[in-house]
Amino acid sequence: MAFQPQNPDYRAFIEQIFRAQPFMMALGAALERIEPGETEISLQIRPDHLQHGGTVHGGVIVALADNGAAAATLLPPGQAVVTAEYRISFLAPAVGHTLLARGTVLRPGRSLIHTKSDVIAVADNREILVATALGSMVPFAFNKP
Amino acid sequence: MAFQPQNPDYRAFIEQIFRAQPFMMALGAALERIEPGETEISLQIRPDHLQHGGTVHGGVIVALADNGAAAATLLPPGQAVVTAEYRISFLAPAVGHTLLARGTVLRPGRSLIHTKSDVIAVADNREILVATALGSMVPFAFNKP
Amino acid sequence: MAFQPQNPDYRAFIEQIFRAQPFMMALGAALERIEPGETEISLQIRPDHLQHGGTVHGGVIVALADNGAAAATLLPPGQAVVTAEYRISFLAPAVGHTLLARGTVLRPGRSLIHTKSDVIAVADNREILVATALGSMVPFAFNKP
Amino acid sequence: MAFQPQNPDYRAFIEQIFRAQPFMMALGAALERIEPGETEISLQIRPDHLQHGGTVHGGVIVALADNGAAAATLLPPGQAVVTAEYRISFLAPAVGHTLLARGTVLRPGRSLIHTKSDVIAVADNREILVATALGSMVPFAFNKP
Repeated sequence: MAFQPQNPDYRAFIEQIFRAQPFMMALGAALERIEPGETEISLQIRPDHLQHGGTVHGGVIVALADNGAAAATLLPPGQAVVTAEYRISFLAPAVGHTLLARGTVLRPGRSLIHTKSDVIAVADNREILVATALGSMVPFAFNKP
Repeated sequence: MAFQPQNPDYRAFIEQIFRAQPFMMALGAALERIEPGETEISLQIRPDHLQHGGTVHGGVIVALADNGAAAATLLPPGQAVVTAEYRISFLAPAVGHTLLARGTVLRPGRSLIHTKSDVIAVADNREILVATALGSMVPFAFNKP
Repeated sequence: MAFQPQNPDYRAFIEQIFRAQPFMMALGAALERIEPGETEISLQIRPDHLQHGGTVHGGVIVALADNGAAAATLLPPGQAVVTAEYRISFLAPAVGHTLLARGTVLRPGRSLIHTKSDVIAVADNREILVATALGSMVPFAFNKP
Repeated sequence: MAFQPQNPDYRAFIEQIFRAQPFMMALGAALERIEPGETEISLQIRPDHLQHGGTVHGGVIVALADNGAAAATLLPPGQAVVTAEYRISFLAPAVGHTLLARGTVLRPGRSLIHTKSDVIAVADNREILVATALGSMVPFAFNKP
């Protein structure tokens, strides 16, 4: 579906919000792509991202899958989003050198934005879908000085 | 509901698994309580747990809410669990000095264990329910020598 | 949690909406209780509610669990709700003579209302929790003359 | 993804199970397509499927979305599935003359099968995605004489 952004500066806005999240910076996540209704976030897998079995911890996968950025591409200026809820299905163990989280808006609404997200593990030249998620985001007006 | 543990050493087993998870150790999470079908995990909130708005990032909340530990209290010896999926509802902004995640088994089964989890933010002497989750865990036999 | 209704006629409003739903009437569902932030719906189990194994079909359970009524108790006059999404966990086979669905508001918001619901099967004098659900509802203003 | 059925008679098995569900028959649902890991179910919309606003009731949509049939195409002989849980997002009001539910297996496992489902409303010559769902199914051996 082709979406029309309402904020001409949506890319700069999302990059700024992203870099202002200490937890995403501590994980080492990076924004790879920002399009209307779509974002891609990457993560170079490190030892401190793992669980006891040597695969990436679910909390890390969820942090990438959570679709605030994709939803935020479609907001008017002066609004941000908060995650209301999501559901994630873990389909395969996350092993490899890189995780990619591709977020997509399913349906933008004024009071609720439905999103989905696929998380892919890249190992050598293989991509494996390790998780898929459905979420909903609530837009709100943030305080301007 | 009162559950009967099948592994007499379930407490030691869960403590061992928990400490073997680099991501939980990097976050600073601690096991506070282990009972049959119930666990409590605590986290002292640090600046690197936050998102841009100053509240705890959803990925951190989910990492605590994910109910492997509660499900694992009811496993027979030689089994572990993997999270199949979960759904989390974010009810209030997570602010305060400490998060507590209380995991509970709703229904233990041989092929699937249904769990729920409440995440509470403690600020001063007030406890606020910030998230509630439903999940399912799949038991599996791990490598025995 | 004690909630304060904003619409003095919330009971009449919910009864009217409930009776106006042909699918709920076709199933034979009945409203048993309406309190601020809480409702109970009952269903006398009939042969056409079942699936092949003789237990109540998941679609019937979900129809009862869907929490519009509980959320609607807290709306101001002139608003209704639409279900944005929900997640249901099936905990036990639904057998017996009656199903009871107890809906509760977890957190009412202006743009989103978080709800939960438990569905109980009554057989003889035993109550069994057969499903538990988390959902979210979006309030909207309906057409006024 | 291309899946290999383990039961040579999977089509006959699914048709038999489907017709043995009184609730699906009462709704008027029909199996349109059965392929390995994929099914399509159709429903001609009737007045008794509706809610008060004139759109199809969520319980009907969920009854179609619930992916037992898609999961069952990949079972070995002598096994059936039970739905453990699912999550459904309602994306648009369901209006039109027909609903189509397209179920797909995301990942088949011996103890858990991850599925997804899209529900489409057909009106005139337009198809609208009205709901999308993620679910999990647990295989079990059924009693043979």
